[in-house]
Amino acid sequence: AIVTAIEAALSQDTSLPLPADVWRTPSAGLLAGRRVIVTSGPTHEPIDPVRYIANRSSGKQGHAIAKAALAAGASVTLVTGPVNLPDPPGASCIHVETAREMYRAVEAALPADIFVGAAAVADWRAEESAPEKIKKDPDQRPALTLVENPDILAAVARRGGGRPALVVGFAAETENLIDNAKAKLARKGCDMIIANSVRSEAGTFGGERNKVAVVTAAGVDPWPELTKGEIGERLIVALSKLLPGAAT
Amino acid sequence: AIVTAIEAALSQDTSLPLPADVWRTPSAGLLAGRRVIVTSGPTHEPIDPVRYIANRSSGKQGHAIAKAALAAGASVTLVTGPVNLPDPPGASCIHVETAREMYRAVEAALPADIFVGAAAVADWRAEESAPEKIKKDPDQRPALTLVENPDILAAVARRGGGRPALVVGFAAETENLIDNAKAKLARKGCDMIIANSVRSEAGTFGGERNKVAVVTAAGVDPWPELTKGEIGERLIVALSKLLPGAAT
Repeated sequence: AIVTAIEAALSQDTSLPLPADVWRTPSAGLLAGRRVIVTSGPTHEPIDPVRYIANRSSGKQGHAIAKAALAAGASVTLVTGPVNLPDPPGASCIHVETAREMYRAVEAALPADIFVGAAAVADWRAEESAPEKIKKDPDQRPALTLVENPDILAAVARRGGGRPALVVGFAAETENLIDNAKAKLARKGCDMIIANSVRSEAGTFGGERNKVAVVTAAGVDPWPELTKGEIGERLIVALSKLLPGAAT
Repeated sequence: AIVTAIEAALSQDTSLPLPADVWRTPSAGLLAGRRVIVTSGPTHEPIDPVRYIANRSSGKQGHAIAKAALAAGASVTLVTGPVNLPDPPGASCIHVETAREMYRAVEAALPADIFVGAAAVADWRAEESAPEKIKKDPDQRPALTLVENPDILAAVARRGGGRPALVVGFAAETENLIDNAKAKLARKGCDMIIANSVRSEAGTFGGERNKVAVVTAAGVDPWPELTKGEIGERLIVALSKLLPGAAT
């Protein structure tokens, strides 16, 4: 069913063509009067008061997108997991730790014109977080039962009322990058997936540069290697041109 | 058996009395010619290339102890997990990610006069780290089988040849702090446990201050609330006086 949906999506006449002049457009004022919500960083899912499950994410790409949206004149809410980055001046920043907290913060921040889910949200959490530190018992392995976290991207993209005009997700993959990103686009119901390889040799985690491919129903647009700041700027220019009512 | 061992340890005439004048002794030169190994920070245990299990630890206390040992004239090897702290100038720093890497680095850094295990080493790791990102499958929860990590503190304390004269561990507990620290002292075979509460209201994680109790076979010495730097200095002074051959 997913494959059929992707094929259908890819065969459609595109509603979201990526303008060819994205690279040469200055961003100032492009999002004036627009509301943008960005999620950034990892989530930490507690196992007990000292242990947690985490995703690798420095938050640099998400924070760069929030800064680019601010520079383009948008009103920006940044919902961020635990990162070692300063809050971008001018953004409304909400600091969260878990996926459930991030989900509630995003819901509370809606409505918005654009939602960019750049956070690496943990897919699973421990079913119960122990209230006290779990002691090591040589006779017994700790049983860690995992349950699925809310899917923030799909929930935002599938909203009936109050869906942002543009919903953008990220696909961090170690293999089959483009195929997985295309599948994610269809499965989550979002408008754009930024696909980036996170194989360790790519150096994406914590690094200053990134190489992404922008996947929409229109197809796949591989971008050259850029700084995370440049990717943020160019993404914001691209999104501004895709917004309903934007001059084309 | 553990209770008996603790009772025996606590009833012994102490071989490690904590000098009363620890607070007023300047540390410069106290560890000249001595070798000190300190572990610091958390370990990260990979589940797959993007997910990991971690302990909460900023590394601030461990790094402060390494700096205090350097200030006292020691030759210092700092084995640190992933932290957002600069390497202390003058220390030989080894950056590791997992408990097994930390264990190998400590073994390679021995011999030493003093070992301080301040790192929050993950007790468990995933039995197998998946080489590629685990895909979310709605029909199946990921099975996370945990296996025990090497116990670095006990391994160093129980060495036959080449055991450091002083082996110091930390006990981060949310409940029964002193009882757990006393049990850990006996169970691991080390000379001193620095017990600190990590209940969230204590603010220990990531904070600049700490309140600890120093547990030795001689008994329990509760220290006042201090900065992590002050705790490092006072610990180094205390250890210098407990070293074989130290002037008393």
